[in-house]
Amino acid sequence: MEAAMPMPIVRTVRDLRAVVAGWRRAGDRVALVTTMGALHAGHLALVEEARRRGDRAIATIFVNPLQFGAHEDLDRYPRQEAADAAALAGVGCDLLFAPPADEMYPAGFATQVSVAGVTEDLDGAARPGHFDGVATVVAKLLNQAQADVAIFGEKDYQQLLTIRRLARDLDIPTEIVGHPTVREADGLALSSRNAYLSADERARAVELPRAMRAAADAIRGGQEVDSALLAATQRLLGAGFSAVDYVELRDADTLAPIRRLDRPARLLAAARIGSTRLIDNIAVNQTLCR
Amino acid sequence: MEAAMPMPIVRTVRDLRAVVAGWRRAGDRVALVTTMGALHAGHLALVEEARRRGDRAIATIFVNPLQFGAHEDLDRYPRQEAADAAALAGVGCDLLFAPPADEMYPAGFATQVSVAGVTEDLDGAARPGHFDGVATVVAKLLNQAQADVAIFGEKDYQQLLTIRRLARDLDIPTEIVGHPTVREADGLALSSRNAYLSADERARAVELPRAMRAAADAIRGGQEVDSALLAATQRLLGAGFSAVDYVELRDADTLAPIRRLDRPARLLAAARIGSTRLIDNIAVNQTLCR
Repeated sequence: MEAAMPMPIVRTVRDLRAVVAGWRRAGDRVALVTTMGALHAGHLALVEEARRRGDRAIATIFVNPLQFGAHEDLDRYPRQEAADAAALAGVGCDLLFAPPADEMYPAGFATQVSVAGVTEDLDGAARPGHFDGVATVVAKLLNQAQADVAIFGEKDYQQLLTIRRLARDLDIPTEIVGHPTVREADGLALSSRNAYLSADERARAVELPRAMRAAADAIRGGQEVDSALLAATQRLLGAGFSAVDYVELRDADTLAPIRRLDRPARLLAAARIGSTRLIDNIAVNQTLCR
Repeated sequence: MEAAMPMPIVRTVRDLRAVVAGWRRAGDRVALVTTMGALHAGHLALVEEARRRGDRAIATIFVNPLQFGAHEDLDRYPRQEAADAAALAGVGCDLLFAPPADEMYPAGFATQVSVAGVTEDLDGAARPGHFDGVATVVAKLLNQAQADVAIFGEKDYQQLLTIRRLARDLDIPTEIVGHPTVREADGLALSSRNAYLSADERARAVELPRAMRAAADAIRGGQEVDSALLAATQRLLGAGFSAVDYVELRDADTLAPIRRLDRPARLLAAARIGSTRLIDNIAVNQTLCR
């Protein structure tokens, strides 16, 4: 009896491309999921979607220093490659690309990709340079893998729009697909940063999606937008969040602020609980009869 | 008798990729030359090099507004597509990609590629934003064409280093090749901007390569670098140049200023004659016995 082939792990762009070139010669369609590791069911749902959309699925794990600010959590960001690799193999991932930092940013590296517009406020304001770091590493990963399609979670909605924009603007021939946020049973969006939460903080964190859902329902029901957003902020502070970076209603495509549901809208929020910053976003669909 | 197939001209990325995909299926190696048109023998030498290095040669013509400053010559930059197409066909170019501006930068375009280091002074100081515009359009053209190799002239030496850097940093899988500057019989580097020169200015312009050659020879012969560069500047001003933006000796790879010929060096200059700005650069090889 033949043993199942273990999922290969490659650490250089050269090796990654050699595997992809073999698949291409065989006529396979290739799908990509980029991650920073610390994988949870949300990431694995992206890999499952990649498997549906391609004959071969690649996952990448790279904790990208360019997208962390000077006072952010780069050093404590969870790293658990062996567990991540086992989880990826378990959902049928065909290849893990896990490069060291000097493979991604060798000495002399000097190029930055930046996207205006969708990056300019919300997390872009709260985390200066963050989206330049995201855009640069994702442009690299897309060009390295040369996949037909890449799947990104809607959890990082501003990031998803940034990546769509840069791929289109730089003519990167990879289709960018968004995938719905995966949530815990109580509604909290899965996030690698949830691991930072104490039991008490975790219990309070569920107020983030609840307050957002309530605000979305109120806006859809006709409540004035600013008062609905203010109520959400007050609810979060009342529930023990230490700060609310933003709760905003935005155009779902451009992220321009909107006051009325006259186009597809997205409610986005970022709030801090203890030393942990959580983000979430949900669609706010128009009612059909107004 | 069958008529020769005329060189096709395509104006959309979709059509460009369709042609390239057909070549790839046939196993052809594809080479790219990007230009702003107003083609001269220097451009055609790049296309001839592309034909040597590939089975198929693509030329692009796009006068890229992003790389012109507000007070530069975008509007008067020479445009002569029919003559350019005939010249390209004459050297065996297989395809001309000549997109309109809204194919390159459609509404909503928001991404910029910027390269630090090699762009930071010389023409980068004289022309703020110029190399961001070059880097952005070349990243797009490389991704659009997906060629195996792309040929760039050494005439725009700082541009060549910028493009090498961005292709490496963004993992664009196209080999970047530099090609020696083509010169008139008297030594003046070919440039589309030479068309701006009056007969009198053209006669004076030859002092640019002559002063540079003299400075390079003097430095190689042991003259102190600063005094050799100063002599070149004075010679240009004496010959009727209206301004000298720079005459500099630089590390040939990093463009870092150097004072001694202890590594491969490049002499770079930019000077104005009337309203026309000319640039040139030459290698300054070390003597073998010192």
